[in-house]
Amino acid sequence: MNAEIVAVGSEMLTPERVDTNSLFLTAELNNLGIEVVAKYVVGDHLERLAGVVRLALSRSGIVILSGGLGPTEDDLTRDGVAAALDRKLVYHPEIAEALEQRFARLNRKMAEVNKRQAFVIEGADILPNDRGTASGQWIEDSNSIVMLLPGPPHELKAMFERQCVPRLARAAPKQVIRTVELRVAGMGESDLDQLIAPVYKKYQNPATTILAGAGDIQIHFRAQCDSEEQAMAMLAEVASPVELLLGDRVYSRNGDSIEAVVGSLLRQHHATVSVAESCTGGLLGERFTSTSGSSDYFVGGFITYSNGLKTALLAVPPDLIAEHGAVSKLVAEAMAAGARRCTGSTYALSITGVAGPEGGTESKPVGTTFIGLAGPAGVEVVQRQFLGDRARIRAFASQIALDLLRRKLMARVA
Amino acid sequence: MNAEIVAVGSEMLTPERVDTNSLFLTAELNNLGIEVVAKYVVGDHLERLAGVVRLALSRSGIVILSGGLGPTEDDLTRDGVAAALDRKLVYHPEIAEALEQRFARLNRKMAEVNKRQAFVIEGADILPNDRGTASGQWIEDSNSIVMLLPGPPHELKAMFERQCVPRLARAAPKQVIRTVELRVAGMGESDLDQLIAPVYKKYQNPATTILAGAGDIQIHFRAQCDSEEQAMAMLAEVASPVELLLGDRVYSRNGDSIEAVVGSLLRQHHATVSVAESCTGGLLGERFTSTSGSSDYFVGGFITYSNGLKTALLAVPPDLIAEHGAVSKLVAEAMAAGARRCTGSTYALSITGVAGPEGGTESKPVGTTFIGLAGPAGVEVVQRQFLGDRARIRAFASQIALDLLRRKLMARVA
Repeated sequence: MNAEIVAVGSEMLTPERVDTNSLFLTAELNNLGIEVVAKYVVGDHLERLAGVVRLALSRSGIVILSGGLGPTEDDLTRDGVAAALDRKLVYHPEIAEALEQRFARLNRKMAEVNKRQAFVIEGADILPNDRGTASGQWIEDSNSIVMLLPGPPHELKAMFERQCVPRLARAAPKQVIRTVELRVAGMGESDLDQLIAPVYKKYQNPATTILAGAGDIQIHFRAQCDSEEQAMAMLAEVASPVELLLGDRVYSRNGDSIEAVVGSLLRQHHATVSVAESCTGGLLGERFTSTSGSSDYFVGGFITYSNGLKTALLAVPPDLIAEHGAVSKLVAEAMAAGARRCTGSTYALSITGVAGPEGGTESKPVGTTFIGLAGPAGVEVVQRQFLGDRARIRAFASQIALDLLRRKLMARVA
Repeated sequence: MNAEIVAVGSEMLTPERVDTNSLFLTAELNNLGIEVVAKYVVGDHLERLAGVVRLALSRSGIVILSGGLGPTEDDLTRDGVAAALDRKLVYHPEIAEALEQRFARLNRKMAEVNKRQAFVIEGADILPNDRGTASGQWIEDSNSIVMLLPGPPHELKAMFERQCVPRLARAAPKQVIRTVELRVAGMGESDLDQLIAPVYKKYQNPATTILAGAGDIQIHFRAQCDSEEQAMAMLAEVASPVELLLGDRVYSRNGDSIEAVVGSLLRQHHATVSVAESCTGGLLGERFTSTSGSSDYFVGGFITYSNGLKTALLAVPPDLIAEHGAVSKLVAEAMAAGARRCTGSTYALSITGVAGPEGGTESKPVGTTFIGLAGPAGVEVVQRQFLGDRARIRAFASQIALDLLRRKLMARVA
């Protein structure tokens, strides 16, 4: 069973806005075994809206519209869908009355325009909205199901979960879509693809999607079939050999971030960590503390952006900086050791690099980064060369630092 | 002149992905006075793709497709558009040769499938791609212009800017779309809208869009008309009174972030700043250093997540923490003063709060935050109560801290 999703509203066609309702709807539909095969964004324009709905209806059994149910003249979803379905709009005085009462409860008088919201497509079921003024509509005939949902996400979500999902579950044939997500650190996208493509390319179902961030790759496997058991077995058939190939580069199997994974390893070991950041300016600390409860293992640290502070706070010898430069193996080493000593943490991570776009030299181009890890057994430093803009280089550096600590903690387990 | 944008690729129909190429394309098209009236996402499916292109061509003069130009069997954009236009695909051996040379330069042998990328729609101009293997295509007839662009954003952007914008500028009638963006700090969205709606509601053109982040609001005014001068005059007519109403809450008029604005104020005053962060864990430092050149004014600081480090690094008296709690006015004051003293910076900002979701109490619920600013004239502290999840509360806190310093520096100018 296939679905198409239409977002309505001219504001969704500006360079600043994306339609996120469709992401929520897609996840919910997939859970019911329903595939989304096309998405649309149209402005507040009757003919264009009706045209898109006609196209969607000609191809898919389920069409879901969001937005354009407000009280103004720009709100044309009711009219557009009625035109596409060749049905009339019928005025429902009980909706207008309920709206009037809603306004009265807020000590306000309902504006005359709100009566537009009492028009319903002939034969539609009304979907009450307890979070706003726009009722939804559910229209079903022998070939298709059309839903009209309000645009504000919190209204749409509540209405869809409570009223549409149960109806769809009855209407849709029993199909399940299940996913497995592997997260991988410390590997480039093309190297990864070359390694695992021979496995996943053999399968159309499960389908495999690879999403690459800075030093962080997500592999999504998605199986669609008749039963939960079958789906899980099909997922295992492709995910297990992929996991075997990737080995300890896989850091999570359940969607957990690397921050959360490192956090639970630290907790397991009753260990703590501190940071000493130069080019990342606090990003690594921000990532550690993005997880609630991180005070169990993250004590804090130093942002030593200037050379003066590297010396004053972390006792990095000024000679070392003068001789080797602030972006160097020895300074990274001294920063990590200094942070560990000053905070008393079990581990300390340091980052110093050229985040750019300025500041690169021939011997240390933009992206040159040293990452230090101090622990009970001493200090180690890795050097990396990252590509990309400032934000990407900093994201990469913090990711590699987290992964360095993850590997150290996993080695301690073994 | 209207345009419609089609993103092609089944991976764009999963719950994790949004099409961001269309945002870039919309901004570029608007600059040329071209309005985007519909957007589509379709999977790798020949008939659905052709159907969408036919619908778009029936309504708009410009249709832009992104993605689906790769070498595999899933890459159907060439075939789908050829079907919709009722044109043939023609094999161009010179494209295949160029691809072979590209692979040879990387010491790799071109796979046979890459020859698919040498098929071009009859009558199309080839748009060379120096960043990838997929050539673009530009097809023009009396009624319409169709563009086929590669999906990877850095390939699409370069190709569109260098090759499509100049061609479009020649083809499109002279219309300009100009925007003005005001950025506002320290005000809620509904309060702001209540204040300025009486002004902007009077105008359909310029159109006004309000985008609200955590403590950070963007107001976009967008005028479309025949000449640059007229557009700028129309923008001034609505933006000037809005700016007057908002006063010093407007922190930028050119899209600059508050980090950049505070940075240039610090630079103007030859002043420096440091930070002492508890619940934000480094976010404030990360924001200061997100701007290249921030080493001119940002020296660094302390992440004192544990109470022990607040005392050890910033000399916050343990009694103070015991008596008033780590989230308190006096601790925020001591943290800011400590950071300023230890780093020798002109100013120091401190943040301590309950970011949640755990850790709230009756007297200090989740969202309670104290922000300190130490400067040559002493220390001041503001208390705020933020709503939202952990990420939002932390974003809010860092935003208010930046705004506090901005106002202090502006007062120094006056």
